[in-house]
Amino acid sequence: MAKSGTKRTKLPKKDYESLVPVLREQLINLQVQLKAAPFPVLLVIAGVEATGKGEVINTLNGWLDPRGVEVFAFHPPTDEERERPFMWRYWRCLPPRGRLGVYAGSWYTEALREASVPKAKSEKFQHALHRIKHFERLLVADGALVVKCWLHLSKVDQAARLKKLSGNPRTAWRVSPDDWKSHRAYDRIDRLGRTLRQATNRTGARWTVIDAADERGRNVAVTETLLTAFKVHLAASRKLAQPVRPKTIKSLEPAGLRKLTDLPLNKKISASAYEVKRDKWLGKLNELIRRTSALKRSIVFVFEGWDAAGKGGAIRRLTSAIDARDCRVIPVSKPTDEEKDHHYLWRFWRHVPRDGMVTVYDRSWYGRVLVERLEGFAREDEWRRAYRELNVFEHQLIEHGTIVVKFWLHISKEEQLRRFRVREQTEYKRHKINAEDWRNRRKWDQYEIAVGDMLALTRQPHAPWHLVSAEDKRYARLQVLKLSCRQLEAALAQG
Amino acid sequence: MAKSGTKRTKLPKKDYESLVPVLREQLINLQVQLKAAPFPVLLVIAGVEATGKGEVINTLNGWLDPRGVEVFAFHPPTDEERERPFMWRYWRCLPPRGRLGVYAGSWYTEALREASVPKAKSEKFQHALHRIKHFERLLVADGALVVKCWLHLSKVDQAARLKKLSGNPRTAWRVSPDDWKSHRAYDRIDRLGRTLRQATNRTGARWTVIDAADERGRNVAVTETLLTAFKVHLAASRKLAQPVRPKTIKSLEPAGLRKLTDLPLNKKISASAYEVKRDKWLGKLNELIRRTSALKRSIVFVFEGWDAAGKGGAIRRLTSAIDARDCRVIPVSKPTDEEKDHHYLWRFWRHVPRDGMVTVYDRSWYGRVLVERLEGFAREDEWRRAYRELNVFEHQLIEHGTIVVKFWLHISKEEQLRRFRVREQTEYKRHKINAEDWRNRRKWDQYEIAVGDMLALTRQPHAPWHLVSAEDKRYARLQVLKLSCRQLEAALAQG
Repeated sequence: MAKSGTKRTKLPKKDYESLVPVLREQLINLQVQLKAAPFPVLLVIAGVEATGKGEVINTLNGWLDPRGVEVFAFHPPTDEERERPFMWRYWRCLPPRGRLGVYAGSWYTEALREASVPKAKSEKFQHALHRIKHFERLLVADGALVVKCWLHLSKVDQAARLKKLSGNPRTAWRVSPDDWKSHRAYDRIDRLGRTLRQATNRTGARWTVIDAADERGRNVAVTETLLTAFKVHLAASRKLAQPVRPKTIKSLEPAGLRKLTDLPLNKKISASAYEVKRDKWLGKLNELIRRTSALKRSIVFVFEGWDAAGKGGAIRRLTSAIDARDCRVIPVSKPTDEEKDHHYLWRFWRHVPRDGMVTVYDRSWYGRVLVERLEGFAREDEWRRAYRELNVFEHQLIEHGTIVVKFWLHISKEEQLRRFRVREQTEYKRHKINAEDWRNRRKWDQYEIAVGDMLALTRQPHAPWHLVSAEDKRYARLQVLKLSCRQLEAALAQG
Repeated sequence: MAKSGTKRTKLPKKDYESLVPVLREQLINLQVQLKAAPFPVLLVIAGVEATGKGEVINTLNGWLDPRGVEVFAFHPPTDEERERPFMWRYWRCLPPRGRLGVYAGSWYTEALREASVPKAKSEKFQHALHRIKHFERLLVADGALVVKCWLHLSKVDQAARLKKLSGNPRTAWRVSPDDWKSHRAYDRIDRLGRTLRQATNRTGARWTVIDAADERGRNVAVTETLLTAFKVHLAASRKLAQPVRPKTIKSLEPAGLRKLTDLPLNKKISASAYEVKRDKWLGKLNELIRRTSALKRSIVFVFEGWDAAGKGGAIRRLTSAIDARDCRVIPVSKPTDEEKDHHYLWRFWRHVPRDGMVTVYDRSWYGRVLVERLEGFAREDEWRRAYRELNVFEHQLIEHGTIVVKFWLHISKEEQLRRFRVREQTEYKRHKINAEDWRNRRKWDQYEIAVGDMLALTRQPHAPWHLVSAEDKRYARLQVLKLSCRQLEAALAQG
């Protein structure tokens, strides 16, 4: 990389002009192949100020078929974005499989901007990098191709470019006082950039540093980086094994399974005692949720449990304590085709509540390590990785101030059979049972192992699993109310 | 309807308690039937302050299966909402077919709130009502069931309720100074409410006025209104005819067809002249779009035209004048399943640009009166109605300040054949042509009639159709640039 603005070889105009048609054809070809590929491509164009990120993107955009590409630029966060966990705004800007997303600055802009303030805390920067690393790792693991170009300019070249832009009345508007400020801080920002690249230069999401002083060369380099990375990635993706349905499954953490099978299921409560206690807890819960909402904190409830364990009934009692205008219940069943075309967590990120609001997930992201693990909808490496991914996802919610309350409603195999039969025999309950429920039931023992692993591997200090005996519906509903109150109280006490 | 707070018969508690289980079962039944029905249900709960809209909704929400219902409350608009046409926030809150949306206040709240200010302009209120009427008519015409309950309280009852709420420490927080202000303006607001109901009380979206002084009676009345309306609607929806593919089609407005066939297709431009002019117009367009963006106005480009007319190429040149970070190209082909589950305009409303941004639709809502008309994807009443719906949709964009630029790229039947053959013979173009293109081509004459009708019936002063001869690609691309400039200039001049 050139260290100064002194003479060096630039790509001659003539060579550039003969190269462009070739590159364009290859780009169009890439898009045609990508259309049928099972992954998205994310092209990140980052770098210090005045390196021409916008120009590169505009050039590339002119070369590509605009139908298959989307450019994402992150303007200051909107209030809808500010009121959700930090990464939400990036999750909502992910291209589906088969499409290309081009990112101007991307998630790196925010990290750099914050860190380049003189008194910025270094831990904060490290934390941002950590978050980014995880985000890219998630996407890469899901098959995405992430191509990252860092446009580099020496301090001398940057000054020259800023002067050139300011000098031309047609481009002067593009240079702001902030750009000059950032120029004066060049050395610090350059160091930060290096730290950032080192920390986030990982398999599947490598940085390519490109000399931005030579504009033509820069455009060619970015394009070639994308083309090469795509070729390699496409070849590799063809070799990926299809997931298979496992014959039997083995427990990863038998402690979880033991905890599940040890749960006493004999707890009962009479109808009359239930009503009194229910009203008491509903009142308390209502008050706690109003307090939470007034503090502009959001709540996520997660309900998992056996088929017919009574999730619906428990949710109904729970939501009766919440102002319906502040609450959404998201029933999770088969993903829509838009959801299938994205990372498996995308469909859950979509519904993350705004500050002060409540989302209840009726079944959730845990499907990844339950049904997807058992039915072979996810490859082994995928569901194995998921425990950590789910923990981090919840951690990001919690970090934002969201309170995450998780339930597993537990019943015995016999009780399930009894309820299935009742459902079949009761006209207005018949819609609740189908062949799949019976199929799942036949795999009870295997599910039990998967549930045990889930309980053991995704228990977190701020997002514990509440294991509820649901053999008696009334008892279960009370427990849900009570445990919700306890967790909200504890969360509010910690502030 | 009771006129005062004096004694009258209220629903006794005992009767209520025996009614509730019956209503709940019927509601669950409704949801089961709705799940398989081809329409959504919208339940609007409106009315003056302190009528217990929230309570009704919470009660109903407790009775329903929360999995199939979503409650929408409209808090003050977020910036993402403010920066789009007024109705965008309601379009984004529409339930898909088979689901129930419950609206707290809904679109009526805003209309009433604005109008209840003493100096409010009456035209503004009339305009809001007009907009609402159209919105509901659209939904109803698409099959939606819109049930609207107006909760009524006499002035005396309202005062009594506000006092009761204020007196209890557990509910005092729910009474704000605004509520008392609104109480003092009771007569004016009551009159407005009557005007509003009269104006928007239309087939398929009728108002039911419910006495809110009797809380139990109110809950029952709302529920019964919903149940009855659903029963009637479900029966009617079963009788709806399936759309059929028409054998031949007849022109509605032959003038449009004449204009199309009269378009001279012999315009050409040399490669060298093209380059000079292109750069001139690109420069101009870039400047105009930057001016538009600085004024916080958005632009919508619509590209329609024959298969192989060169939409993609024209769009690529156009977007090269726009900063890619401010522009999205939306290729419109088959709707996704989430899109299919909504009104046909929903998928276009989704992508309406924020202020200062540009959206380019590559094919558009006009598919409704072209392919959907010809292939029988829409019933005759549907596509006939669509001309007006599309006009109003664009009018709402324009009203917000969006500039709407529409192109029809025209070529001869012979030129299309030539281009199809080239596509088949050129390796990197082959992906652009398929059996459907050939099928459409066989219906050229019928498409021509439909296009003519579209041109004639959706031409609007602020959203004219630009009919472009695309027989020569260079000429067409220049025309697109030039006409875009002219329209932007005119729009900016008018302010």
